Amino acid sequence: MYTILRQHIEKIVPLTNEEYEQIQTYFTFKKFRKHQFVVQEGNAVEQEYFVLKGLLKAFYINAEGKDHIIQFAMEDWWITDYQAQINRNPATLNIDCIEDTELLCITFERKNELCQAFHKMEHFFRIKSAYGYIALQQRILSFLNNDAQSRYTQLLRQYPALFQRVPKALIASYLGVSRETLSRF
Amino acid sequence: MYTILRQHIEKIVPLTNEEYEQIQTYFTFKKFRKHQFVVQEGNAVEQEYFVLKGLLKAFYINAEGKDHIIQFAMEDWWITDYQAQINRNPATLNIDCIEDTELLCITFERKNELCQAFHKMEHFFRIKSAYGYIALQQRILSFLNNDAQSRYTQLLRQYPALFQRVPKALIASYLGVSRETLSRF
Repeated sequence: MYTILRQHIEKIVPLTNEEYEQIQTYFTFKKFRKHQFVVQEGNAVEQEYFVLKGLLKAFYINAEGKDHIIQFAMEDWWITDYQAQINRNPATLNIDCIEDTELLCITFERKNELCQAFHKMEHFFRIKSAYGYIALQQRILSFLNNDAQSRYTQLLRQYPALFQRVPKALIASYLGVSRETLSRF
Repeated sequence: MYTILRQHIEKIVPLTNEEYEQIQTYFTFKKFRKHQFVVQEGNAVEQEYFVLKGLLKAFYINAEGKDHIIQFAMEDWWITDYQAQINRNPATLNIDCIEDTELLCITFERKNELCQAFHKMEHFFRIKSAYGYIALQQRILSFLNNDAQSRYTQLLRQYPALFQRVPKALIASYLGVSRETLSRF
């Protein structure tokens, strides 16, 4: 079941059928409707999510009530409020669904147990996390360089499918530019 | 030897004396002088560095020849050009020493071997990487919020010692503001 999860893990570590059978028992399945919230600011964050189907955004609402999109997630991406999860703080982010969405959910405890039980899953998550770190460094460089155009090009090149599915107003919020600036790119 | 490395690892995973004895053999010691380069743009990046003593900066030189500081590192921090290391590309960053510096160096291969030999070291690096990811997300939020002041406050609060040691011109480059803007904070 959930072939997409197995394929995703096996990009980094090979698994036997028996291993995968066990690994998938750490996850639970959940469906969400478009516009539904998965994580809400102020609430505890118990789980991390792997996207089977659909599209989500993680966003921060600033003091003036303006949204800033920190992350999108679509099929075979992971998403949660990592800061809240690791530090056991209430969520500072919101995560909601841009489309009808199906998720595999794993609690923080179960993820630790999974990594404990399967050294290769600890390896998998270490490597995934390293790639995530690099992607954020690239995004920071483009901010330091004050270069929204390069953030735009990077997004287009790395995630052409995402760009097709996400409304332009949300792309603008992710890039930190106005809708007008975006339309000039 | 290198008590600072052991203390740093033991913040996340406890080690026996025997384990630590073995772990430290994966590292080699190297001294650098102030202004000396540890990583240079265009070169291969073979190693990751743990700071025993001193202070470094990782920076990117943009098309106009302007520096952007992506990271500082001082005692018990890790630094390298992660993107170059993981993707096996030539370095796009430069890393040089702001003070005389002593480093423990570990090659990419040896780090993988270390993680393979010690499940707890794989766990250690997974958790470190997750914390790194969170710190970068916070920095991105402050860029999206166009709030250099909050990046400044964050830096001061998180790393007061760093702030004392780093010349103000470099702090400004890290925050992505002019020296004049910084002096108004």
